[in-house]
Amino acid sequence: MEFKVKLLGIRAGGKQIIVLDDEYASLMGIHSSDRVEVTYKKQNIIAIANVATDFPKKTLGIYEEVQDKLKAQDGEIVQVRPAERPESLGYIRNKLNGRRLRAQEIKMIIMDVVERHLSDVELASFVTSLYIHGTSMDEDESLTKAMVETGQTIDFGKGAILDKHSIGGVPGDKTTLLVIPIVAAAGFTIPKTSSRAITSPAGTADRVEVLCPVDLTVEEIRSVVKKTNACLTWGGALDLAPADDLLIQVEYPLSIDPLLLPSIMSKKKAIGADYIVVDIPTGRGAKIKTIGEAQALAQEFIELGKRLDIHVQCGVTFGEQPIGYAIGPALEAREALLALMGEGPIDLVNKAASLAGLLFEMMGVKDSTQKAKDILKSGKAEEKLREIIAAQGGDPDVKPEDIEVGNETAEIRSEETGRVQWINNRAIAQIAREAGAPKTKGAGVLLRKKLGDKVTKGDVLYKIYSGSAQKLESAVLLAQKLNPFGVTGKFGEKMLVDRIPTEKIYYEKPFILER
Amino acid sequence: MEFKVKLLGIRAGGKQIIVLDDEYASLMGIHSSDRVEVTYKKQNIIAIANVATDFPKKTLGIYEEVQDKLKAQDGEIVQVRPAERPESLGYIRNKLNGRRLRAQEIKMIIMDVVERHLSDVELASFVTSLYIHGTSMDEDESLTKAMVETGQTIDFGKGAILDKHSIGGVPGDKTTLLVIPIVAAAGFTIPKTSSRAITSPAGTADRVEVLCPVDLTVEEIRSVVKKTNACLTWGGALDLAPADDLLIQVEYPLSIDPLLLPSIMSKKKAIGADYIVVDIPTGRGAKIKTIGEAQALAQEFIELGKRLDIHVQCGVTFGEQPIGYAIGPALEAREALLALMGEGPIDLVNKAASLAGLLFEMMGVKDSTQKAKDILKSGKAEEKLREIIAAQGGDPDVKPEDIEVGNETAEIRSEETGRVQWINNRAIAQIAREAGAPKTKGAGVLLRKKLGDKVTKGDVLYKIYSGSAQKLESAVLLAQKLNPFGVTGKFGEKMLVDRIPTEKIYYEKPFILER
Repeated sequence: MEFKVKLLGIRAGGKQIIVLDDEYASLMGIHSSDRVEVTYKKQNIIAIANVATDFPKKTLGIYEEVQDKLKAQDGEIVQVRPAERPESLGYIRNKLNGRRLRAQEIKMIIMDVVERHLSDVELASFVTSLYIHGTSMDEDESLTKAMVETGQTIDFGKGAILDKHSIGGVPGDKTTLLVIPIVAAAGFTIPKTSSRAITSPAGTADRVEVLCPVDLTVEEIRSVVKKTNACLTWGGALDLAPADDLLIQVEYPLSIDPLLLPSIMSKKKAIGADYIVVDIPTGRGAKIKTIGEAQALAQEFIELGKRLDIHVQCGVTFGEQPIGYAIGPALEAREALLALMGEGPIDLVNKAASLAGLLFEMMGVKDSTQKAKDILKSGKAEEKLREIIAAQGGDPDVKPEDIEVGNETAEIRSEETGRVQWINNRAIAQIAREAGAPKTKGAGVLLRKKLGDKVTKGDVLYKIYSGSAQKLESAVLLAQKLNPFGVTGKFGEKMLVDRIPTEKIYYEKPFILER
Repeated sequence: MEFKVKLLGIRAGGKQIIVLDDEYASLMGIHSSDRVEVTYKKQNIIAIANVATDFPKKTLGIYEEVQDKLKAQDGEIVQVRPAERPESLGYIRNKLNGRRLRAQEIKMIIMDVVERHLSDVELASFVTSLYIHGTSMDEDESLTKAMVETGQTIDFGKGAILDKHSIGGVPGDKTTLLVIPIVAAAGFTIPKTSSRAITSPAGTADRVEVLCPVDLTVEEIRSVVKKTNACLTWGGALDLAPADDLLIQVEYPLSIDPLLLPSIMSKKKAIGADYIVVDIPTGRGAKIKTIGEAQALAQEFIELGKRLDIHVQCGVTFGEQPIGYAIGPALEAREALLALMGEGPIDLVNKAASLAGLLFEMMGVKDSTQKAKDILKSGKAEEKLREIIAAQGGDPDVKPEDIEVGNETAEIRSEETGRVQWINNRAIAQIAREAGAPKTKGAGVLLRKKLGDKVTKGDVLYKIYSGSAQKLESAVLLAQKLNPFGVTGKFGEKMLVDRIPTEKIYYEKPFILER
């Protein structure tokens, strides 16, 4: 049926949506969320229909994503007809009913995800089914491969490609900013693409962006890696495994993460990684709570790696408290820089050396962790980071004191004397976010005390940094409410950790989505 | 944060959606699908955010559903802030994780559905979880009650209210058009609201609309019922159990129906039904395939009825072939009228008398099925239908030959001699829809032969009616492809029912969504 184009001039967040009036939709048997085929000058596209009352008759409202492809002008005539249901919907239905999917079926689903042939409702049902029924290793393998095949891949044309990934969940984890220069300084190639924060106060890309641009094109990345053996860039706009990015948009509002393994491994495969170390921070306040859970996940990473021709080593790391003292992009960038200059907190330095050591071990380097520490101590890693900063367009001579942090600050003091017995990771992350991180780069939290430290009543436990007085105030209020530090004389003296009041409060399990 | 209103002038299919630019969305920590609170002149509403690139900065695009409530004008200033996650999301998550939901939790979810606080992604995940994990009888009860409490209810202020419902799935099932007048003619009150077709060639509302208007207001319905003891109206716009209508919008694209019982029973409870007969057509081509399945479902209806103070009787009816000969709104209205005038096909008359009989039995009437047949034979049911037609604004003197049917027709003939051994319900329904039903009222299929009938090669098996030559042609092509009649000499002569070719064809299980 012929419709007149009406350009809506709005983007639909990446979705291909058209709007038509209910009368003609009904005549054609089209319901909201149905797919339609729109034809203009022999070009066909599939879009999701949004049926509207009070919309001009026989008029097709088109969002900009559709216009980008169709290139029809206001008032021009297009042909509209109901589209066939994509074959992949039948496979999604099979998963809904608990069946395992075959490689070819998964490929069809992932292709339809990337080509935007599936509606939000269908995507949500798919990830919900994956979450409830789980995925087999065969399915994870097929998902990973399909995600790689439907996106951009980068071939650096060098020998072995190394990489490092953390499944996240611990605040202040700026370890990558040390591992990459250490490994590159040893002569290995380690092109690192990272994400920005989704649910945390800082992602690696947010931290690096304090020092230099991270939004590089594939060509720019190639050139940086050629010069320095490494890079520290944002992976979000590179179109590596785009299906994963689209599925995350549905997983995030549902707070579920059934595609953890394919999501991570597809990004690694897309940049041609041969050797990966995966950091699995483990602890009560981390994404993974127990060592048993961490071991099970590690085995899955290793097995999936084998199927993808990637050598994987997993490091289960201590995740009961933040790494180092700084939380928030600028505070963390400063701490990382100081660590490379020889003044790093012991946990950060040891974590970075251990993870770099695992990579060295895979490459046949002896005394691998010591080797990593030596490189750090020698200043070569600092030098390498400055090379990378320069290659990415930042100031290679940046000093720690040049890094601007929030000028609105507040110190939170202890009301008790004793030792720090626990630190609530999630509460610290929430306070840092409330103060403005990651959007306000200088916002965050700087710890003064960590686990086991002696505290006298009135001592500063941590300092909150913010860019605005209003956000600072609200972060301080949250800090008072959440009280993330447990300070007691000795274990056993304070047994009541929390008190659940009689009036009904809804407790929600925290959801950590990091990539 | 303050935003300037930009009216988009588009409806979003009932959803409350606002659009804002990615930069400011990111500053406020708002992702696509997040909820925001919009405040204007002390009025607050919750809407779902659509984050758009290339959208004017600090501008809030509002769809008409939001404008209906907010009433802000173009260019005016509104306050926007991230809204709290609704409590109900936590309960949806619990269901996702396989937990049973309590009454109060279900109430919160259903309230948030009706108030449009949940996004499509969340609704899709919820119905997917209900489908995979199933619902307990306690949950069905709570869902039903919550759906009733969040919608309109009608109190007819008369004694016992009777009702009739079919779970659907058999084409040509115009039984309601006979049952309602039979029951009302016996002096009982039976206000019947029906739906239009969703996946079938005709719903009861589509059939009745051939005879008189069905889109009545609550006040009009009250007046019709006062005059005639009955009505035959469309329930879609009455706001009875609106949560159900909203959830169906998500169930339909997913082809799942986990809320069958609450959906049906909430509509009945909302009109104050005390006695209901539920028709469960059973057969290979119906929604319910076996008698065992039908019995299990019947028990659930009865149990749920008890919890709602509704007396329920279920009739498991023969569903292996269409009811009567006519399929399509006008053809069926004509057949129903003829049946009330004494010239009905035996299966239609018997089915109507049996179901009316079950209602009579509940009301203590003796020889109940015979009583129903007597009323039919006496002409009182015909008289009652004409009263209802008049009260709803139709022509009470309508004759069967006045009813217009499609003028483009084609006869499909048998290529074999023998007896009709099977009729494929779904194929018949698809052919009728391809011919234009239910949108084209006169389109459909008229059978000439039914199960057990003798057929000689060249005999007409059925006739297709359409409003356009093009649709007729496409229906005939489909008929040739689907070949819905099985004609053989005797059972056993033709054992190969279908042949699955080696090349991969995707077979999809049909989905029947009728209310």
